[in-house]
Amino acid sequence: MSNKKLKKNILPFKRRFIQTQRLRYQTLLPEILTVETKVESTGILSECSGKVEDVKKGFPNLYGRPVLHFVKDKSENVEHKPLKVAIVFSGGPAPGGHNVIVGLYDLIKSHNKNSEVWGIYHSMSGLLEERYIVLTDEIIDQYRNIGGFNMILTGRKYTDPKEAFPAFLNFCKKSGLNALVVVGGDGSNTRAANLAEYLCQNSEDIQVVGIPKTIDGDIKNRFIETSFGFDTATKVYSQLIGNIMIDALSSEKYWHFIKVMGRSASHVALECALKTHPNMVLIGEEIEKQNKTLSEVINDICDLIMERGKKGINHGVLIVPEGLVEFIPEFSVLIDEVNKIVKESPEREERWAREEMIEKLTGNSLKLYSGLPKGIARELLYSKDWCGDITLSKIATDKLLKWSCKKELKNRGFNNFNCMTHFFGYEGRCGYPSNFDSDYCYVLGNTAGRFIEAGVTGVMCGVNGTWKPTDEWIPFGMPFPEMFLMQKRKDGMEPIAKRILVDLEGVPFKTLLKYREIWRLNDDYYAIGPIQFSGDTKDERSITLLLEQKNKTNWMDKVMEKIEQDEF
Amino acid sequence: MSNKKLKKNILPFKRRFIQTQRLRYQTLLPEILTVETKVESTGILSECSGKVEDVKKGFPNLYGRPVLHFVKDKSENVEHKPLKVAIVFSGGPAPGGHNVIVGLYDLIKSHNKNSEVWGIYHSMSGLLEERYIVLTDEIIDQYRNIGGFNMILTGRKYTDPKEAFPAFLNFCKKSGLNALVVVGGDGSNTRAANLAEYLCQNSEDIQVVGIPKTIDGDIKNRFIETSFGFDTATKVYSQLIGNIMIDALSSEKYWHFIKVMGRSASHVALECALKTHPNMVLIGEEIEKQNKTLSEVINDICDLIMERGKKGINHGVLIVPEGLVEFIPEFSVLIDEVNKIVKESPEREERWAREEMIEKLTGNSLKLYSGLPKGIARELLYSKDWCGDITLSKIATDKLLKWSCKKELKNRGFNNFNCMTHFFGYEGRCGYPSNFDSDYCYVLGNTAGRFIEAGVTGVMCGVNGTWKPTDEWIPFGMPFPEMFLMQKRKDGMEPIAKRILVDLEGVPFKTLLKYREIWRLNDDYYAIGPIQFSGDTKDERSITLLLEQKNKTNWMDKVMEKIEQDEF
Repeated sequence: MSNKKLKKNILPFKRRFIQTQRLRYQTLLPEILTVETKVESTGILSECSGKVEDVKKGFPNLYGRPVLHFVKDKSENVEHKPLKVAIVFSGGPAPGGHNVIVGLYDLIKSHNKNSEVWGIYHSMSGLLEERYIVLTDEIIDQYRNIGGFNMILTGRKYTDPKEAFPAFLNFCKKSGLNALVVVGGDGSNTRAANLAEYLCQNSEDIQVVGIPKTIDGDIKNRFIETSFGFDTATKVYSQLIGNIMIDALSSEKYWHFIKVMGRSASHVALECALKTHPNMVLIGEEIEKQNKTLSEVINDICDLIMERGKKGINHGVLIVPEGLVEFIPEFSVLIDEVNKIVKESPEREERWAREEMIEKLTGNSLKLYSGLPKGIARELLYSKDWCGDITLSKIATDKLLKWSCKKELKNRGFNNFNCMTHFFGYEGRCGYPSNFDSDYCYVLGNTAGRFIEAGVTGVMCGVNGTWKPTDEWIPFGMPFPEMFLMQKRKDGMEPIAKRILVDLEGVPFKTLLKYREIWRLNDDYYAIGPIQFSGDTKDERSITLLLEQKNKTNWMDKVMEKIEQDEF
Repeated sequence: MSNKKLKKNILPFKRRFIQTQRLRYQTLLPEILTVETKVESTGILSECSGKVEDVKKGFPNLYGRPVLHFVKDKSENVEHKPLKVAIVFSGGPAPGGHNVIVGLYDLIKSHNKNSEVWGIYHSMSGLLEERYIVLTDEIIDQYRNIGGFNMILTGRKYTDPKEAFPAFLNFCKKSGLNALVVVGGDGSNTRAANLAEYLCQNSEDIQVVGIPKTIDGDIKNRFIETSFGFDTATKVYSQLIGNIMIDALSSEKYWHFIKVMGRSASHVALECALKTHPNMVLIGEEIEKQNKTLSEVINDICDLIMERGKKGINHGVLIVPEGLVEFIPEFSVLIDEVNKIVKESPEREERWAREEMIEKLTGNSLKLYSGLPKGIARELLYSKDWCGDITLSKIATDKLLKWSCKKELKNRGFNNFNCMTHFFGYEGRCGYPSNFDSDYCYVLGNTAGRFIEAGVTGVMCGVNGTWKPTDEWIPFGMPFPEMFLMQKRKDGMEPIAKRILVDLEGVPFKTLLKYREIWRLNDDYYAIGPIQFSGDTKDERSITLLLEQKNKTNWMDKVMEKIEQDEF
């Protein structure tokens, strides 16, 4: 007996499902994507984020190519040859991923019903092991506007390019694949760029196109306005933060320390703060710039707790980015020293104990480490990255802050501090994508398909004007090297994507600066509520996006002006 | 400069706010509440949940009164004298509370614009300290359909009836208050009942009316179908659980142990499970009935983890009720022993250490306690309830299960277990109320107002047919004693509300029984998505409510039949 049948038998009532509603949602398309198009140069040459010479050496083929866009193809009876396009998801899921596949599928199938989209399972490892599924209408129609990466799953396994690239090439030739679409964060798009360059160097006409995915919001630059998933994830986190704020206000009992996902940059924390107005938010980039120590950070928080306490207010909300400690300079020093100590005994098999480490550490690192709560100090020695290095990434920042504040407040003789910690991360990665992420991803998929049809390789797909209504969007393709600088690694110089941190001179952070003094003592909490798929708020953009994009000079305007001039 | 002004100046764009949308939402009313009404007996006498004689003694005035309802008042030009009605929130917030006030306010103001609603701050302690606000249109209009209890705040302070009741009476006389509406859980409604009885005994015509509030869903009986807040809270938790499920499915890396609020009963866990279809859900009531030990529970979970592991599935989702350990019989024995030991040294001031406790414990309690992870064993000794007794309520159940499963699986030689724990509680207490909770609370407030106008006291307001569309609902008043049994306490017999646990013979649990075998290995996860305020799913009822109410014989049907007969 199938599950479905069982359900019908048992539940004595009909349920209405949000899935049904979302499957029926009609994603909107920019005008240019509703017609036959051809690819043209915008006339703007891409550059890079590091030393030009180095990046040029790393990408002799891709470097310096122009940013591309679409114009209407006025030829009659455009024919599209059948294509085989593979697509992979890489890294942590982000809301909207399925719509990239759906957008790509709809486009190339509508142009030639013999075209195929192959969903490669488990990212790159599926490519190497040739595990994939040829997608069909039936499959695609189950995932329209639905969250998750479960249609073709994801993966993060590191694959050595020296073996992986020839293997991929071999697979393509064998199976007649024309192109690969990589949906991933900066790491995956770096590998995609390397692969695209490799294929060019080998004069293969297999194309590689990238899609900017990360809920962390740290893939952006002068062309790319936002990565998909950021919009939905920050809305989910802010919904929960808002609910907790109103609870804090209603119950007047607790401080809530809320950690939000986002390790390498504090965009998520900033966006959530702009949405919800907490009493305090820690922005890692600012703390790093001010070269603050942990105890200075703790003092800042405790000052606010006491300031409010003196007014009889013993509740509050603090937002903390997941990667906070990585921005506190003394922690980087500590972790370097810990790793050095560990590496000095390479044959050692058992784990280091906290006490042993304390014996070996010196100076400020000793002070910092031995001052950490025991549990956290112990865990720190267990968390290793894939290179085997001990990392800060798994430190329970929210608990560390709670513990440290409690201790400091006790020292100060303040006892009215009751604190709850929360971590919002996994709750936001697979939610139903907002209308924005649904549309954005569908457009990115469609854009990828058009570039592939036009024979383009080595670009990341982007959309200009994402803060405007969807029909005014202008899709484009940015050559990969724009994001890179080169760094010395074991095997020579390798490209890495520039970390896009919160810009302390940017409008979003400056907006925070203007508000945050007010928010400290006046509870100006704002509950944004759950994401709505219909009604007034259904297409609301993220505040970061609006603040960054709406009032800046738009590079695309000039391109469009030129097209209009050419036409008349 | 006011915040509002600042906002206008800084943000270079207009934001659309869900608040605005919700403030405009028109709550629906049952037909009977759209006309002038008078109160009539349903002809059904209320009873009690304990020994009749005892409860009769506790409530000589209120016991055995009939359940009341409304009929159309056909007299012309009904006049309503001006009233002063006080309202309090008590205990933890639940979504919809503001609408009780709004519903009450709208009703009595529409009947006589000189009537007043006084919002008493901080529950009972505000009553005694005479801290209150006379509510106005301006205040009310800021809170229509908005979550939280922040309009008049809440409290949980225990107040001794011997002092509180005369003080309240005094306050009423002085200020001309006619009635008190208590919005609270079982404890607060018990106090409300005692107060109502006290006022009757003293021949005072001050009325007390109760409103069933708790997200835990454990206030219900043959008349009351559900408490407000349960609908919204379980939807918020299920949204998050669903998102995590899709993440588990997409990433295939983790088991997620998800603890949901609800200490004294497992209704929330059950509802969330029926909504989301986890691989396993622990229902405290079942575990108690089966007299399971902690290690048996751990074994059950580990069996499933390994069963899935053998099929290569190393992810999964387990839902756990917050109060799980309180249902494991050996924990009650342990806690009794711990409290006995603590009480044997009454003068002792410093906290007990884990090691000391181990020295004193014996038998199974010793085994259980010393087998707990150190942190949890230590914390256990710190968590005291308001009587100073050590309690199980603050045990980190999710972490205990994770730790114990890890240990057990290691013993079994199974190493593919990576687990994340989550606790969803505060996220659900102050969300924007669903349309159901918005309507339900507005109707409860309106109902309370009509009973007060009619001079009724000692009833809890309820609604019959809540699973049907709002216009078909039938509001009623149930005499308080229906909920009570009497228990021996220090000061003699006192009423306590019967704990309404998950009924293992009830349809909701039996439905779980039919599904859960399938859900163990087949990932039939269901993501319900965020609460929608418009669209197809906007009025979806909780599954528990539908399963419990839809197919049972409805006591109100007979009442209605009789009315129809009388009319013809």
